[in-house]
Amino acid sequence: HSVVVAKELTSVAQALVSPRGKGIYATDESPDVVEGMLVAASLNGQENFTDQEKTDRRRKWREAAYSSLTNDHISGVILYPETLLEFKLGESLSSKGIILGVRANGELAPFPASPFEFIVQGLDDLLPRMQAARAAGARFSKWRAPIACTSPALGLPSQVSLEVQAETMAIFASVSQQAGLVPIIEPDIEFSADADLYRSVEIHQKIIRMTYARCLDHGVFLEGTLIKPSFPQPGLKHPTRKTTTSEDIALATATVLANSVPTSVPGVVFLSGGLEPAVAMKHLSALNALVNKAKPGSPFARLPPLSFSYGRALQGEAMKHWVRGDIQAMKNAFDQATKGCFMAARGEY
Amino acid sequence: HSVVVAKELTSVAQALVSPRGKGIYATDESPDVVEGMLVAASLNGQENFTDQEKTDRRRKWREAAYSSLTNDHISGVILYPETLLEFKLGESLSSKGIILGVRANGELAPFPASPFEFIVQGLDDLLPRMQAARAAGARFSKWRAPIACTSPALGLPSQVSLEVQAETMAIFASVSQQAGLVPIIEPDIEFSADADLYRSVEIHQKIIRMTYARCLDHGVFLEGTLIKPSFPQPGLKHPTRKTTTSEDIALATATVLANSVPTSVPGVVFLSGGLEPAVAMKHLSALNALVNKAKPGSPFARLPPLSFSYGRALQGEAMKHWVRGDIQAMKNAFDQATKGCFMAARGEY
Amino acid sequence: HSVVVAKELTSVAQALVSPRGKGIYATDESPDVVEGMLVAASLNGQENFTDQEKTDRRRKWREAAYSSLTNDHISGVILYPETLLEFKLGESLSSKGIILGVRANGELAPFPASPFEFIVQGLDDLLPRMQAARAAGARFSKWRAPIACTSPALGLPSQVSLEVQAETMAIFASVSQQAGLVPIIEPDIEFSADADLYRSVEIHQKIIRMTYARCLDHGVFLEGTLIKPSFPQPGLKHPTRKTTTSEDIALATATVLANSVPTSVPGVVFLSGGLEPAVAMKHLSALNALVNKAKPGSPFARLPPLSFSYGRALQGEAMKHWVRGDIQAMKNAFDQATKGCFMAARGEY
Amino acid sequence: HSVVVAKELTSVAQALVSPRGKGIYATDESPDVVEGMLVAASLNGQENFTDQEKTDRRRKWREAAYSSLTNDHISGVILYPETLLEFKLGESLSSKGIILGVRANGELAPFPASPFEFIVQGLDDLLPRMQAARAAGARFSKWRAPIACTSPALGLPSQVSLEVQAETMAIFASVSQQAGLVPIIEPDIEFSADADLYRSVEIHQKIIRMTYARCLDHGVFLEGTLIKPSFPQPGLKHPTRKTTTSEDIALATATVLANSVPTSVPGVVFLSGGLEPAVAMKHLSALNALVNKAKPGSPFARLPPLSFSYGRALQGEAMKHWVRGDIQAMKNAFDQATKGCFMAARGEY
Repeated sequence: HSVVVAKELTSVAQALVSPRGKGIYATDESPDVVEGMLVAASLNGQENFTDQEKTDRRRKWREAAYSSLTNDHISGVILYPETLLEFKLGESLSSKGIILGVRANGELAPFPASPFEFIVQGLDDLLPRMQAARAAGARFSKWRAPIACTSPALGLPSQVSLEVQAETMAIFASVSQQAGLVPIIEPDIEFSADADLYRSVEIHQKIIRMTYARCLDHGVFLEGTLIKPSFPQPGLKHPTRKTTTSEDIALATATVLANSVPTSVPGVVFLSGGLEPAVAMKHLSALNALVNKAKPGSPFARLPPLSFSYGRALQGEAMKHWVRGDIQAMKNAFDQATKGCFMAARGEY
Repeated sequence: HSVVVAKELTSVAQALVSPRGKGIYATDESPDVVEGMLVAASLNGQENFTDQEKTDRRRKWREAAYSSLTNDHISGVILYPETLLEFKLGESLSSKGIILGVRANGELAPFPASPFEFIVQGLDDLLPRMQAARAAGARFSKWRAPIACTSPALGLPSQVSLEVQAETMAIFASVSQQAGLVPIIEPDIEFSADADLYRSVEIHQKIIRMTYARCLDHGVFLEGTLIKPSFPQPGLKHPTRKTTTSEDIALATATVLANSVPTSVPGVVFLSGGLEPAVAMKHLSALNALVNKAKPGSPFARLPPLSFSYGRALQGEAMKHWVRGDIQAMKNAFDQATKGCFMAARGEY
Repeated sequence: HSVVVAKELTSVAQALVSPRGKGIYATDESPDVVEGMLVAASLNGQENFTDQEKTDRRRKWREAAYSSLTNDHISGVILYPETLLEFKLGESLSSKGIILGVRANGELAPFPASPFEFIVQGLDDLLPRMQAARAAGARFSKWRAPIACTSPALGLPSQVSLEVQAETMAIFASVSQQAGLVPIIEPDIEFSADADLYRSVEIHQKIIRMTYARCLDHGVFLEGTLIKPSFPQPGLKHPTRKTTTSEDIALATATVLANSVPTSVPGVVFLSGGLEPAVAMKHLSALNALVNKAKPGSPFARLPPLSFSYGRALQGEAMKHWVRGDIQAMKNAFDQATKGCFMAARGEY
Repeated sequence: HSVVVAKELTSVAQALVSPRGKGIYATDESPDVVEGMLVAASLNGQENFTDQEKTDRRRKWREAAYSSLTNDHISGVILYPETLLEFKLGESLSSKGIILGVRANGELAPFPASPFEFIVQGLDDLLPRMQAARAAGARFSKWRAPIACTSPALGLPSQVSLEVQAETMAIFASVSQQAGLVPIIEPDIEFSADADLYRSVEIHQKIIRMTYARCLDHGVFLEGTLIKPSFPQPGLKHPTRKTTTSEDIALATATVLANSVPTSVPGVVFLSGGLEPAVAMKHLSALNALVNKAKPGSPFARLPPLSFSYGRALQGEAMKHWVRGDIQAMKNAFDQATKGCFMAARGEY
């Protein structure tokens, strides 16, 4: 990478996690998912909208959400390509000093080698898509790779699926940088099954290490990237799920990061996935509290900024108000959620 | 794979190289390439055709070529998707006992990690495309992966590009089998540069081994696959290019195959690439002659059937006659070429 | 490798499995193991011998056994270093046209990464040891790597142990060839646990493929090597152990070999491990019978010679007679066992 | 690892680089090398000593050197096994609060796959040797792996040698921790050839990453390890050797470490190799100065303590005085050298 490009990538990546506490608002759900969320938030349940009406509603929701944001606590927003390229809502954010990102991955396809795992589509035509996003104002991009995680007895994830996901994320990262966008790799390890915390730690550590190994093999400039991991945690079907504390998860998470994320990566922004907003914030706050009290010079004290890239945790309450038409309550809900995440990313939630 | 599917895949793969001598006619050039070939074969040079006229001419050429074939020497034909799905010319071949194949790979995209190498596109949506081809009568498919090859000093291919190509071919093979099509992997090692024969052998062996390793990791059923490799050979810019004989190349090729193609793979069908038709036949005949005289039980005697999947070597002369409207000469040219390749695949050219 | 060395290695490797039916007598048990076997074969149980008396008895047993052999059915014998270098019994075999081999691996050491698996020692000083064996007449060598194999739920072998064993066998093979000895790699997959046949197939295929991949990376000349694998089989603790037939095992074994042993490897000599002699012969005969009836040109028909490298299956009965002093009965037992193995290696037992 | 063992390993590893500035004195040269150094330092050149006289002289030199040390600037000393187990000089150091280490690797052996590279011996019997060292007071150990490094055109190091060295260092580290010793891995990349700085960076990064990947696969507890790398630098035969500054090397070194050393590793102690003492100190000081001025939270600011594990740079001058019998001058030389290194490790030399 030329020095100019490298400097810009580095500067964008650092800005997304600076000053400490700021994080990312993820709004890259696909149209069907937004529709489902709006229906779920509504009091009336399923309504009969035409496609055009659904599109209009989607755009209006995005507009309302973005209009509620300031850059006090939010450094960047991840947009779905439609929002960036068709609704053209990027300017409303960038004018407030919020950095624009774009979802890069496509939909999932079956993975013949392992019937319960998936291939992430989207590498075909990735470069022109990323170039178009850059032209529309995006400065970063994100690729989500879902990773199954069961007990060793059930055997997921398969080695071959981890290899494919690591390779795919690395190719994404290299293409994204070629288009001038900071790539955020998102290894999203499932917690719906029967893995215990130790197994979750092992799988997190493995896929993150494998991905960075491939990133370096692909010439990715790590200073100009971020990572959006899940928190290691016991699966919903494991008996320790209920007795595991945020402090346990904080220790597991810090250990994973210290073993697997290269020092050159300037920041970590966690995903909230299926976690309740309050839980996602508690985990993040416990992790930052652990780092805050680590001995200077020790591994945990040398971790990069640990922040958030949350969707539901930021917008869940707000959306309920919006569908009822209560704009002020929506704004208040956004304010409260973004401030809460900001405090959590400082270990003070 | 179910036993029924496995049996059909095995049976198709074996039929493509049985009885010894039969091989494949590759007609999977993209429209632009066909157009270029027709222009080159014409006496008038570039003509001003509309897109529709070009499409019509392409279809007519395919029809003429396919009408010239019998299954005396040709076991299968690889069709471009347009030919199979839009021109619907498959039936004209299958009614003669010729097996239909389809090109699976898409076009090339830049490879950020190495500016002189490429990513092969086409994995997105591969499964539905292969299912559509199967529904249209195809029973096999093919994926070409171009591999650069220079002296070690110039450093190509890069390790990372070999890894990506091997992974991609293995995913292709597994998806193809899922759709019920025998996959033919085509690692096409360039010979335009300064590699010597030893280097070409090393690179052939490496990419073929890597690809089968990944195929087995992806659960590919090797008995239901074929391989379409290039011949190891010195590059055009290497001084030994001119002094290397077909016998040298035969020995190098047999060594590569014995070291890298698993015994479970039922056949090898070489590509002719940029070779003159007579040269492609001489290499193939020398290789089969070497195998014919190997001591029973020795490694070379235990190689699978070694046949052809040629395009230009089969149709080059015929096309010249067709553009001039001489149908009988075209048919004669096809007869002569297919018979020559058949004899070469028996070591008797 | 120079052409001269390569030719000699090839010639020795082929001679060990030619003509079809001939195989290897493995007498590379360590002194303690021989002692245990002699005690077990004796009617008197444990006797109080001095070390010198034990050594003398060991030497006498080896002498008696070797004097019983002809090269009608036995192509080679694997000697323990003491037998070759101190007892100097090689000449008694080579004078009969039997090829001398030497055990190369040392004893096992704990493997910190996995408490139920082991590191094989012996790489330190391997080259001078192999050179000394060559100077004493040896022309081949053997390295045994024990591989654990349980159900996936119990999780053995670990990936890391397979990687270490593959690397170690490949280094052994390259050093052995450097000393002018044909290396025989012996991946010995345990069958004492709860793996089913499918799992055993998977692990056989995996370690064999990994080992050859590393061998080629280490520049090993495969035409000058052999492999001594176990038969894939259900573990003793798996319910299907009793219902699995020699024909099932033959099919599993042929599949493993076709997928994992490169065509350039000139032969396979199975180990009998803990199998009853009659069972070891039945499996081998069923495998060769399967190959005999395979369609010409098909993968199974193209497998290399499939013979034996048996210890107990050849000497078990003979030793019982020897400890009782009945030399003639010992010779008859050897004759019968070697002839039986010879017939089994032709599919005619 | 049990919590108790893990805590001790962590505590020893951190103590070796705390407080900032302290480092290690490496005295693990083999007897022949010490002899050569003493002869070179002497005015009289080669003298005719008996083996016993040589051993006596070696012991006396070690005694003199160790008696000169305090733990003001030196946290630990690496002893040759003879010094620890036969001369029994450990107590003289540990009584001063200096931590004892032991050399773990054996001598080099030829590497058949690549004639200009080497296998490091010493894995056979490693566990009992490390246990004996621990019983004699050692708390850490060190394994040196020499890595060739030429221009890509000359092709060293080979991929296979890097893989063997990484595997070997990882096995060493896991065995060392099993014996209760903090392992220090020492990838020593040569700078005698024609590599440029970029190539040296690439090779450093590659072997360090590969080694940690294998360490994690082998279950090594990284918080209880250290690394002793060389400085990336142009080779002696590359034209930029003379124009490359300590600042260039500092930037290259920080980049390598940020990309390849996991955050969980508590410290880096550089080797001085063939560098002049003043140069080894200047590089170390420039590196620490770079870190000192890095923006808080940025990758370089998050590197672990960067100190020294020097031999010649600490003892070169002192030895010259000792062979002349000038004990006071020797002590002064040690004081000056250890203080200089201490200041360099704080960026203040």
